[in-house]
Amino acid sequence: MTVEQQFVDYVKKMQNYGEALSVIYWDMRTGAPKKGLGQRAEVVGTLSAEMFALQTADVLGEMLAELEAKQNELDFVTKRLFEEMKKGYDESKKIPADEYKAYVVLQAKTEIAWEEAKAKSDFALFLPYLKEVVAYQKKFINYWGIKNGSPYNTLLDKYEPEMTTDILDNVFGQLRETIVPLVKAIQASPHKPDTSMLFKYFPKEGQRAASLELLEKIGYDFDAGRLDETVHPFMIGLNSGDIRVTTKYDENDFRTAIFGTIHEGGHALYEQNIDLKLIGLPLATGTSMGIHESQSLFYENFVGRNVEFWKHHFEILQKNSPAQFGDVAVEDFLAAINFVEPSLIRIEADELTYPLHIMIRYEIERELFNGDLQVEDLPQVWNDKYEEYLGVRPTNDAQGVLQDTHWGGGMFGYFPSYALGYMYAAQWKHAMDKDIPNFDELCGKGELLPIREWLTDKVHQYGSLKKPFELLNEATGEGLNAQYLADYLKEKYTKLYQL
Amino acid sequence: MTVEQQFVDYVKKMQNYGEALSVIYWDMRTGAPKKGLGQRAEVVGTLSAEMFALQTADVLGEMLAELEAKQNELDFVTKRLFEEMKKGYDESKKIPADEYKAYVVLQAKTEIAWEEAKAKSDFALFLPYLKEVVAYQKKFINYWGIKNGSPYNTLLDKYEPEMTTDILDNVFGQLRETIVPLVKAIQASPHKPDTSMLFKYFPKEGQRAASLELLEKIGYDFDAGRLDETVHPFMIGLNSGDIRVTTKYDENDFRTAIFGTIHEGGHALYEQNIDLKLIGLPLATGTSMGIHESQSLFYENFVGRNVEFWKHHFEILQKNSPAQFGDVAVEDFLAAINFVEPSLIRIEADELTYPLHIMIRYEIERELFNGDLQVEDLPQVWNDKYEEYLGVRPTNDAQGVLQDTHWGGGMFGYFPSYALGYMYAAQWKHAMDKDIPNFDELCGKGELLPIREWLTDKVHQYGSLKKPFELLNEATGEGLNAQYLADYLKEKYTKLYQL
Repeated sequence: MTVEQQFVDYVKKMQNYGEALSVIYWDMRTGAPKKGLGQRAEVVGTLSAEMFALQTADVLGEMLAELEAKQNELDFVTKRLFEEMKKGYDESKKIPADEYKAYVVLQAKTEIAWEEAKAKSDFALFLPYLKEVVAYQKKFINYWGIKNGSPYNTLLDKYEPEMTTDILDNVFGQLRETIVPLVKAIQASPHKPDTSMLFKYFPKEGQRAASLELLEKIGYDFDAGRLDETVHPFMIGLNSGDIRVTTKYDENDFRTAIFGTIHEGGHALYEQNIDLKLIGLPLATGTSMGIHESQSLFYENFVGRNVEFWKHHFEILQKNSPAQFGDVAVEDFLAAINFVEPSLIRIEADELTYPLHIMIRYEIERELFNGDLQVEDLPQVWNDKYEEYLGVRPTNDAQGVLQDTHWGGGMFGYFPSYALGYMYAAQWKHAMDKDIPNFDELCGKGELLPIREWLTDKVHQYGSLKKPFELLNEATGEGLNAQYLADYLKEKYTKLYQL
Repeated sequence: MTVEQQFVDYVKKMQNYGEALSVIYWDMRTGAPKKGLGQRAEVVGTLSAEMFALQTADVLGEMLAELEAKQNELDFVTKRLFEEMKKGYDESKKIPADEYKAYVVLQAKTEIAWEEAKAKSDFALFLPYLKEVVAYQKKFINYWGIKNGSPYNTLLDKYEPEMTTDILDNVFGQLRETIVPLVKAIQASPHKPDTSMLFKYFPKEGQRAASLELLEKIGYDFDAGRLDETVHPFMIGLNSGDIRVTTKYDENDFRTAIFGTIHEGGHALYEQNIDLKLIGLPLATGTSMGIHESQSLFYENFVGRNVEFWKHHFEILQKNSPAQFGDVAVEDFLAAINFVEPSLIRIEADELTYPLHIMIRYEIERELFNGDLQVEDLPQVWNDKYEEYLGVRPTNDAQGVLQDTHWGGGMFGYFPSYALGYMYAAQWKHAMDKDIPNFDELCGKGELLPIREWLTDKVHQYGSLKKPFELLNEATGEGLNAQYLADYLKEKYTKLYQL
């Protein structure tokens, strides 16, 4: 056997452990009985330990060294596989094993502390843990080495390869200049859509039926996936033939399920349409968090909030909740679902103000790692920024700095992906318009297949074979350009609010 | 660390792999999307290979040798754990690795051949595979060694420790003498219950609601389990806190779901009530197939077909299928569900004729391994025995020798467990009557907790800590006694059919 074959077999074995853990994770979220969870954690521990052992084994290091020496002879897939595995191997090996172990323990404690702190709305309970997490992250950055010129860039690169604060400062600045005046104008506008229909009773069974139908409409393959209910919706790729989505049913706000399902469905279309030659390899997944999010947001916003889309598909909601929608004109429905109002909670934010929530988090993270912002000052800085950017000020920590789980989990550098995904999505849409000039018409006819095919052709099929900027450049002819999102928002909301 | 501690940790690790595989198995049966199954099989392969490696590792052999030398110093649990692991280790190690591998491949092919042969009702398609399976089983018996005096006893011992053909010949003879004349008398009886109500439409959702309610009534803990739908119903113990059952809904014959659920629920009560000190160990399961089946059959027949039970619980069926049962008297319902009629298919057989189906299979297996019955003669022998014992003769192989999957899977020695379970169940019932003389009254009030508690006290809690005969002797003061089942059947059916 050649070293390439050995390497691929080794990686597939690791991936099989990962898939087993994913099945267990999915099961734990979708209804595993609670009394079994303690012992199930032991199972997760055993498999994770084996994964970590495989990930850091000397034999892997030796194979990587051999492959590195003959990098130029490798075929394209093996070369990318080598790069990805090498990145993971180095990341794991550079942290001393005992420190990593202590950090894993800390993370578990921090999660518990966060839950308690959030429930009691008391940042002080969370502070000592978060300080330690940040200190570890800073130490890890030292082990990993400064990437692209600053400590925070090292973290950004983990979720969005090659992303930097220079790029983000630039695109976020551009977006802010569009969004902030737009939000102010909307607030001053006498035009106030009636949103009362949104909060009428929509039975869960009907929401499920509508969710299933909408997933099918956008091209989700139920032979390669399923829809379940969870407290927090997610998409999970077990393997390319088994990409599951979950949703949450709020009977007094159907948007959670309907737009949540379309969002997760967008993620799922990405993973269902990766070239099957990558099945069983870690390359059979999205190439970055931002690119992944671009697929979910494309479907949620550019398809799922498209005016023509609902002219055709509104009947799905009407038939499943006739008392709520039977007498509603689709134009009124569209005005309601596109209602803009600055608010405190990110995951409840509308499409227009959402990027501002991300910018606040981004700036705080950047200053934590590149500047001299202290962890104890987070609540104050958070509240000040909300007031500055959104004109609303949290009155307690639960509605402020404690609302998200990311920081407690050590996921610094992750938040920007959400806004990047949005910008990427607008950029795909701009490029797609050239190839599919009748996009609106197709949405209006419920003929969504060409849209999915375009995305498969430009994005999905490659999985992680191409890096984000490479993918973007090849598909759109340029690097990240925030203008497309800015233009989209300006045009859409000027029209909706008759500004 | 002592060798005992190392050993327990090692076994727990093995068990964790087993639990992961069980989660995957459950998921595959309850709705995993079909396109992902190919890659999922790779995951199963990886984890199974690791399980097998752990099961046969030299390090395990060394620990077992050390423990064997100090057997008398071991505490009770560790000693039983040692015995079980030693049995499994010896069984695995005695077969040469390449032969075992070839056998696993053969098994997979045989399963496919069986499916095709059954679909085409053509034993000839199955014959070459089954011959090879039998040849392997004979070779394995040689490796394992003759237990209790004959080759077939070696196979019996795998499923029911210490069981022999001497015992079975004896108890089956006794049962046959009761059942055969009883069946003939019933067939000659002018009394024919009206069974038409059984086959009326009972909507799936109602069957599910009734199944859930009945599970709760018998004491199934939904915080430690869940009910799902599968093609073939089963109970699966992931760990003591997660014991799941599945059922099947036939809208034109509710008995499949209702009695199937009670049956699987009986299995589940066993595993939910094993002493928690055994959690994570292979001892936290039923001590034999027969004892396990005694729990499911106890609930299915001695509770679920009890006259007083249905006087109280019939309303559960009535409210979930009012058109079917609204006007039915409970006595007529009881006559219908206890209808006796000799038939060709084991899994559709009534309570009285069921043991005859098992005896036929037992006698064939016994002659295959201890006598000179040839595999090619199975269809003929099968059909002759059905005619002799049940008075019905299969007209094709699908309804005859091909109906069960067991033999293709190499599970020779397993069938007797079903009838043993039935005899054990009657023996528990006889012993229970002394402690709970008002059994019928409790069933009639829906107060089933004391019944579950008695079984937990005598059976459940021990898991595999005690061997079947040990358990039986300690709880009932005697060894296996077929008279209790014979008496029960005679009394019940004489009365029902006014013989």
